Amino acid sequence: MNKKAFQDYYPDDLSQCYGCGLLNEQGLQIKSYWDGEESVCIYTPRSYHMAIPGFVYGGIIASIIDCHSTGTAAAARYRAENREMNTQPTLRFVTASLNVDYLLPTPLGTPLEIRSSVKVIKGRRVVVESRLIAKGKVRVRGEVVAVQMPANMIPLTVD
Amino acid sequence: MNKKAFQDYYPDDLSQCYGCGLLNEQGLQIKSYWDGEESVCIYTPRSYHMAIPGFVYGGIIASIIDCHSTGTAAAARYRAENREMNTQPTLRFVTASLNVDYLLPTPLGTPLEIRSSVKVIKGRRVVVESRLIAKGKVRVRGEVVAVQMPANMIPLTVD
Repeated sequence: MNKKAFQDYYPDDLSQCYGCGLLNEQGLQIKSYWDGEESVCIYTPRSYHMAIPGFVYGGIIASIIDCHSTGTAAAARYRAENREMNTQPTLRFVTASLNVDYLLPTPLGTPLEIRSSVKVIKGRRVVVESRLIAKGKVRVRGEVVAVQMPANMIPLTVD
Repeated sequence: MNKKAFQDYYPDDLSQCYGCGLLNEQGLQIKSYWDGEESVCIYTPRSYHMAIPGFVYGGIIASIIDCHSTGTAAAARYRAENREMNTQPTLRFVTASLNVDYLLPTPLGTPLEIRSSVKVIKGRRVVVESRLIAKGKVRVRGEVVAVQMPANMIPLTVD
């Protein structure tokens, strides 16, 4: 694994995200790394991230998969362009769709390992597949369709 | 709309959920109601629930859709059985799959309205379709497959 996470390369104005922003003090601040062809994120939910006592809330799982996948999409695009993540122009992805299948309950109080691979990388679109492992079992599967954020999307115009 | 929310009927041991539990002080505590054949949830994200400045984080949107849908599934099942939500046995649903399509950016600082309808109600399975509206536009669509929690699932056994 690299020592610097994908998210550590995000510019300040893209580091406010509740899921992965270094500058969002209330947020999850997840970290993603390459591990060969897969990307990996290890996150231990807080005690109050529960669904029912003893089990992790599915919305937090969806959030981790979401941010880890958009981070993986960006890292994969840099890699495809043979560029380091600290080079310009900045590549950042937003989520077009998020699909999560909850196969087994996920226990609270233990680290969750999310391992992802890039299924499609074409044009501005990257599809990332993930599995969440806890206590040695795959408990959740996810798929994110990530789309490269246009440079003029920051700041976005709400219409 | 009824004055009492679906979540107000959950028993205490099912009211710890980060998304919708009355007893989770750090959680979102969303509230869902019938409005005719549709269910509705109005939620205003907190300032730090952002993706990039000015816009709501997609993981929070997924979380609201998740809990609002499982609440709607329970309410729909009670309704199908011609029962009030305060009658025994308690019906509670968990999420089997969560699909969210982000069509437009969702502005932060304004109430979000999530409106849902029951697409399928069969056996222990309820499929709920949702749309999220902010500033008059549908910005997100979601579909949740909810499955009735077996009575012996509380407390769940992790295997």
